[in-house]
Amino acid sequence: VGGAVSRRRGTVLEHAIFDAVLEQMNTVGFSGLTMEGVAAAARTGKAALYRRWPSKEDLVVDALNHVLPSFDAPPDTGNVRDDIAEVFRTMLAIINGNAGCAILGLIGELDRDHEFITTVHERVLAPRKAMMTAIIERAIARGEIRPDAVNPLVCEAGPALIIHRLFCEGRPIETAFADAVLDQVVLPLLTRPDTAAQAAPATRTRA
Amino acid sequence: VGGAVSRRRGTVLEHAIFDAVLEQMNTVGFSGLTMEGVAAAARTGKAALYRRWPSKEDLVVDALNHVLPSFDAPPDTGNVRDDIAEVFRTMLAIINGNAGCAILGLIGELDRDHEFITTVHERVLAPRKAMMTAIIERAIARGEIRPDAVNPLVCEAGPALIIHRLFCEGRPIETAFADAVLDQVVLPLLTRPDTAAQAAPATRTRA
Repeated sequence: VGGAVSRRRGTVLEHAIFDAVLEQMNTVGFSGLTMEGVAAAARTGKAALYRRWPSKEDLVVDALNHVLPSFDAPPDTGNVRDDIAEVFRTMLAIINGNAGCAILGLIGELDRDHEFITTVHERVLAPRKAMMTAIIERAIARGEIRPDAVNPLVCEAGPALIIHRLFCEGRPIETAFADAVLDQVVLPLLTRPDTAAQAAPATRTRA
Repeated sequence: VGGAVSRRRGTVLEHAIFDAVLEQMNTVGFSGLTMEGVAAAARTGKAALYRRWPSKEDLVVDALNHVLPSFDAPPDTGNVRDDIAEVFRTMLAIINGNAGCAILGLIGELDRDHEFITTVHERVLAPRKAMMTAIIERAIARGEIRPDAVNPLVCEAGPALIIHRLFCEGRPIETAFADAVLDQVVLPLLTRPDTAAQAAPATRTRA
């Protein structure tokens, strides 16, 4: 281990490693990424990587978790439209940023490695779903949306359209697209009227 | 060229080549697929491949077109629910079949090769969109759905949820999932009421 490397400690080295992972994902893809390649790009040793990450799958998932925003605190603006708009803005920032290519690269691998699916699911997708659920539960509590208009598919329709756009048309995805998803699909599903009396306020704003 | 190979002509050889492409996509992925590998698996010569397909991208797109159903005749059952259910059944058959892995593999490549995006878009995605549009235009003409409830995002919401499911949870996707997408997302969006009078028939069947 050379002098330049040994001086780097903790988070500095960790960031160099994660940057190298995203760089490799963007250039050679997940299938081309190797522990050797990441170690060389981050100017560290392969053994140092293996001490912390038993496989490249673990390393890639950790690198993604590093660049993905924390899902600890879902937005709480006081109304469901602004809350979901904030989630979509975060999704677009991720997709249009450095991690976007990396995530696309992973998608292609998912069917061939089911353990990897589980990891990505638990550490990336499930927290985002939990965030949407928290936002919608607060909106129900405020009386903004009817409880029976909501189910897991309705919660996923917006994110699904954004991800679908990503691989139909590539990056970047414009904010205007996310706004259209919100106003033309998500809010109509969440606020769809059950009776004429309940329908009036929701449809009046759209007409 | 050996005797066994020279006896194969036209569609027989073509099918062997396309089978070899899907096999390679499923085992080594798009990035690992080579013209040499396909030629060897199909027991033909690399030169024969290059005479017809200038690149592996062209070959893969042709192979996918071969296994994907023709979009010439959209289903026409007489009602919008059955028409869309038929489109979803076709999507699930593709996803759960041999081409499913190949398509997943392609998704990961899309951002790195924009010309390839265009090809996949024109030859795979655009025809499917045109099919959904034809179905919905007929439903509008029959008076089943309001014209102003429909826009490109609404048409894409169902397919987007199915594709999203594919890479969140892998294969196979059950028919029950496609039915839920249809009944909980697509039909509520297509039939959402504008006024109380129009709302009654649509919401009564859901309640």
